[in-house]
Amino acid sequence: MGIIVQKYGGTSVADAQRVRNVAERILYTQSKGHQMVIVVSAPAGKTDELLALARGVAKKPSSREIDMLLATGEQISIALLAMAINDLGGKAISLTAAQVGIKTDDIHQKAKITEISSRRIEEELSKGQVVIVAGFQGINSQNDITTLGRGGSDTTAVALAASLKADLCEIYTDVDGVYTADPRLVPNAKKLKEISYDEMLEMASLGTKVLHLRSVELGKKYNVPIHVRSSFNENPGTIVKGGALMEQGRVVVGVAHDNKISKLTISKVDDKPGVAAKIFARLAQSDINVDMIVQSASKEGLADISFTVNKEDALKAEEVATSMIEELVAQSVERDDNKAKISIVGTGMLTNPGVAAKMFSALANKKINIEMISTSDISISTVIPASDVEIAVQTLHSVFELDK
Amino acid sequence: MGIIVQKYGGTSVADAQRVRNVAERILYTQSKGHQMVIVVSAPAGKTDELLALARGVAKKPSSREIDMLLATGEQISIALLAMAINDLGGKAISLTAAQVGIKTDDIHQKAKITEISSRRIEEELSKGQVVIVAGFQGINSQNDITTLGRGGSDTTAVALAASLKADLCEIYTDVDGVYTADPRLVPNAKKLKEISYDEMLEMASLGTKVLHLRSVELGKKYNVPIHVRSSFNENPGTIVKGGALMEQGRVVVGVAHDNKISKLTISKVDDKPGVAAKIFARLAQSDINVDMIVQSASKEGLADISFTVNKEDALKAEEVATSMIEELVAQSVERDDNKAKISIVGTGMLTNPGVAAKMFSALANKKINIEMISTSDISISTVIPASDVEIAVQTLHSVFELDK
Repeated sequence: MGIIVQKYGGTSVADAQRVRNVAERILYTQSKGHQMVIVVSAPAGKTDELLALARGVAKKPSSREIDMLLATGEQISIALLAMAINDLGGKAISLTAAQVGIKTDDIHQKAKITEISSRRIEEELSKGQVVIVAGFQGINSQNDITTLGRGGSDTTAVALAASLKADLCEIYTDVDGVYTADPRLVPNAKKLKEISYDEMLEMASLGTKVLHLRSVELGKKYNVPIHVRSSFNENPGTIVKGGALMEQGRVVVGVAHDNKISKLTISKVDDKPGVAAKIFARLAQSDINVDMIVQSASKEGLADISFTVNKEDALKAEEVATSMIEELVAQSVERDDNKAKISIVGTGMLTNPGVAAKMFSALANKKINIEMISTSDISISTVIPASDVEIAVQTLHSVFELDK
Repeated sequence: MGIIVQKYGGTSVADAQRVRNVAERILYTQSKGHQMVIVVSAPAGKTDELLALARGVAKKPSSREIDMLLATGEQISIALLAMAINDLGGKAISLTAAQVGIKTDDIHQKAKITEISSRRIEEELSKGQVVIVAGFQGINSQNDITTLGRGGSDTTAVALAASLKADLCEIYTDVDGVYTADPRLVPNAKKLKEISYDEMLEMASLGTKVLHLRSVELGKKYNVPIHVRSSFNENPGTIVKGGALMEQGRVVVGVAHDNKISKLTISKVDDKPGVAAKIFARLAQSDINVDMIVQSASKEGLADISFTVNKEDALKAEEVATSMIEELVAQSVERDDNKAKISIVGTGMLTNPGVAAKMFSALANKKINIEMISTSDISISTVIPASDVEIAVQTLHSVFELDK
């Protein structure tokens, strides 16, 4: 009799009827002889509602108190789900992260799990209880409540699965798996039966929002198979795992895109050693995450430096860059918020030369201008105008035969 | 530099502006050189909102999970209040009952505090923090969240004041003190400057809703002066205390009333020893709190037994009594939901004979029918028709010269 960890997202527990549906699904799985540990997010919309309350009382609420506030969202979900299971005749008990003993570091609002105590959960499982754990939250060494950042409930689930040596971690969400591309852009996108941890990591970091990045890292580290599936139907979803995959033959497994990209260009920078380092050190100090960087060839000792950031950091990045114009002896800073990043991902690229050329020429055939390029072992990314996203994703999906 | 514990009720933190007003008041008191420990209730309406959620998912939610759910209400309040104080330039930290270490027994939804650890609070006070503690909640020996019952935040505040050896415990509420009678019924009711613990206990148990009964018991036990006052103005309120009182001369300090009383009568019960015991044992088993009991004189070996209960327990009490008719060889059970209890309270009664007579004749002069009577050392209570409450309270208030 193995342990199954299931995680339900906010839309799965958004109202009473959905909570009761989830309760039924859990009891059904338990009836097949499994020990059940459930991780739940805050009801959909609750986190935003709480953040609005915070903004009502303070211009810049402290991170510690934000975490204290936000943690109530999951606490509501776990209590309601436990009640629903008990009401259906099952046995369930809810536990906050503090009660389980999910220890994290001290970084409020994006804490990392450092240790999980499995004692209380195992004790309750042995009494036949369904154990319902608040996702997204932990406690630091001082017993202060921390949160793991948006999507952190996925991480809670995989970390619990690792710590309990669960057979499987099922992530129930509002999509029914990982697709070869976003089905809203590519109607004939295919759901993947399986994907490797590395490919999933790459997809997630390149814009595919199905799983929280850190949960995949943890899954890989502890070799926990993660089954991503829909809480609204019974269809099998996508299994994220290590080892041999059935679909290993494929060069490219998916097309990822991210259309919340801004591109900044600092023009005519004095091209001396250390100039780029200075710029990016200053941006890092301001907590701005720079993604791609391109430096133009130097002309008369002057070069243009372009880089991309998340759209939400763009204004701050522009401020930082502008404040350095004099120091850099640069001419100007330009910001363009209408960029997108299109990527192809697949471990097969490692052994298949010519993938990049195929990608670039496919985009060129559609007259899509590639402005920046970056590559990793198992992905190639390009920055293009945001207006070309849809056609670019469809073209690459078709060229790499992902609809087959 | 002494410690002051302040408790703010749900209406005081019902919206952003009120939270900010409370924050300002706290910082003002702190600026006079006090160490501040604040206890807050859930925002007004939040507890009912959460209970409605619970009823949506389960017909009979378990008490443990209700407590898990309700505790989020205070957690929201403490986080918001800490944010507001920090935003005003103060230093504040919020703590749940679990973080403080407010230990209780295991009775969910009406737990009693058994122990409070003052370590974390003292540590934070010594850093100059305003310490904001979630009222109404505790944890039991298994670290499960418990709640203290409605009004339990008052108890949290007084218990903290006792444990921290605070100079004063201020209870901020939506009325500005304890009155000689309910000002809604008696427009010329007077606010009491002081009242003794015993008198306040009696007033609270007889229907005066200003302070939670258990908080007064604790105040008496640990000799913590409790200042009841309004959070909406600066007026001094009422101080509940032991020892000599300035207004000690008074025979009667107040008139209390409770118009949520039902009277049940079991007619023609076989008048044998042990019959009454049987009835009230059965009611107790059903968790029904019986207040007054009157047994009529026996006629031909048969007697009528009347008793009062809270209106909300009346239907259940009627069921229990009806189920015993055969066993008791009784004739019938009658229920009357239109009763009220009117009481006068005052330690002076102990040494002043004739108070009861004065009360009964005053009611008789107004043609108010007294149906039941009970007395304690410092109070006399009568059950009357609910329709006579207003005139009865006004009459007694005037006869005992409480408006002087």
